[in-house]
Amino acid sequence: MVSFDPASLLTVAHAEALAGLAEGGVPIGAALFTVDGELLGKGHNRRVQDGDPAMHAETAAFRAAGRRSHYRDTVMVTTLSPCWYCSGLVRQFGIGHVVIGEAATFSGGHDWLAENGVGITLLSDAACTELMTRFIAEHPELWYEDIGAETSGSGT
Amino acid sequence: MVSFDPASLLTVAHAEALAGLAEGGVPIGAALFTVDGELLGKGHNRRVQDGDPAMHAETAAFRAAGRRSHYRDTVMVTTLSPCWYCSGLVRQFGIGHVVIGEAATFSGGHDWLAENGVGITLLSDAACTELMTRFIAEHPELWYEDIGAETSGSGT
Repeated sequence: MVSFDPASLLTVAHAEALAGLAEGGVPIGAALFTVDGELLGKGHNRRVQDGDPAMHAETAAFRAAGRRSHYRDTVMVTTLSPCWYCSGLVRQFGIGHVVIGEAATFSGGHDWLAENGVGITLLSDAACTELMTRFIAEHPELWYEDIGAETSGSGT
Repeated sequence: MVSFDPASLLTVAHAEALAGLAEGGVPIGAALFTVDGELLGKGHNRRVQDGDPAMHAETAAFRAAGRRSHYRDTVMVTTLSPCWYCSGLVRQFGIGHVVIGEAATFSGGHDWLAENGVGITLLSDAACTELMTRFIAEHPELWYEDIGAETSGSGT
């Protein structure tokens, strides 16, 4: 049973995405909450800021939450459908639910998570979609780098 | 075609695992190489050392390698079968090949990676297996925490 307000949680992730954009980074934000709405950690993609390709929004939020013995009572909220890397994080650590801002600009592993018992709430949020649509249009190379996708010009 | 020597690459990951053990950490090591054998980055699990649950061996090696536009010509070597989190990393970023020390003490997502086109070399290395077998026996709580597995006493 979902006892939290997904839209309310998304505002925290969206604020993180905007903070990342203001720093010149990839504007994706995330946060980890308990199902009772307690914030455990939040963060945003730090590829540009830290030169760290491993620091996606979800991993940043997960790291910020610190060490825990289990995650079954937690909810990951992210502005964008989680990529395979971040979907793998959710599955491995048994995060119970994922709230997703949008999956229109990029669709990662959320269907796979649902098939494996993770609760998924897809909000199709217009502000999140607009933010990523604009970023991808303005910085395609950075976006493709962030998801490990090769552009047509660099393929074999 | 595999043009590198898997056993030679594994020695680098194994040395990282031993460094982690000496620091009191989870003894799993990894390294990212090009298919020509150039070392791009290496690291080990840093859950204990940094209080960072997101820093598995593979993510540490990936971070150490820094930003790259693509990974199709890279090989990830790890002392232990990659968990879903680290398998997701490999799939998302298109790492072409994974060399695994052992999958006897823990089997993660390497079959899933193989099904999705990633080359897998499983070495069944005795030293790697012995290292993890001993660690799990001596520090079960730490090990279960590292893979997000709840022990029978804490389950619902």
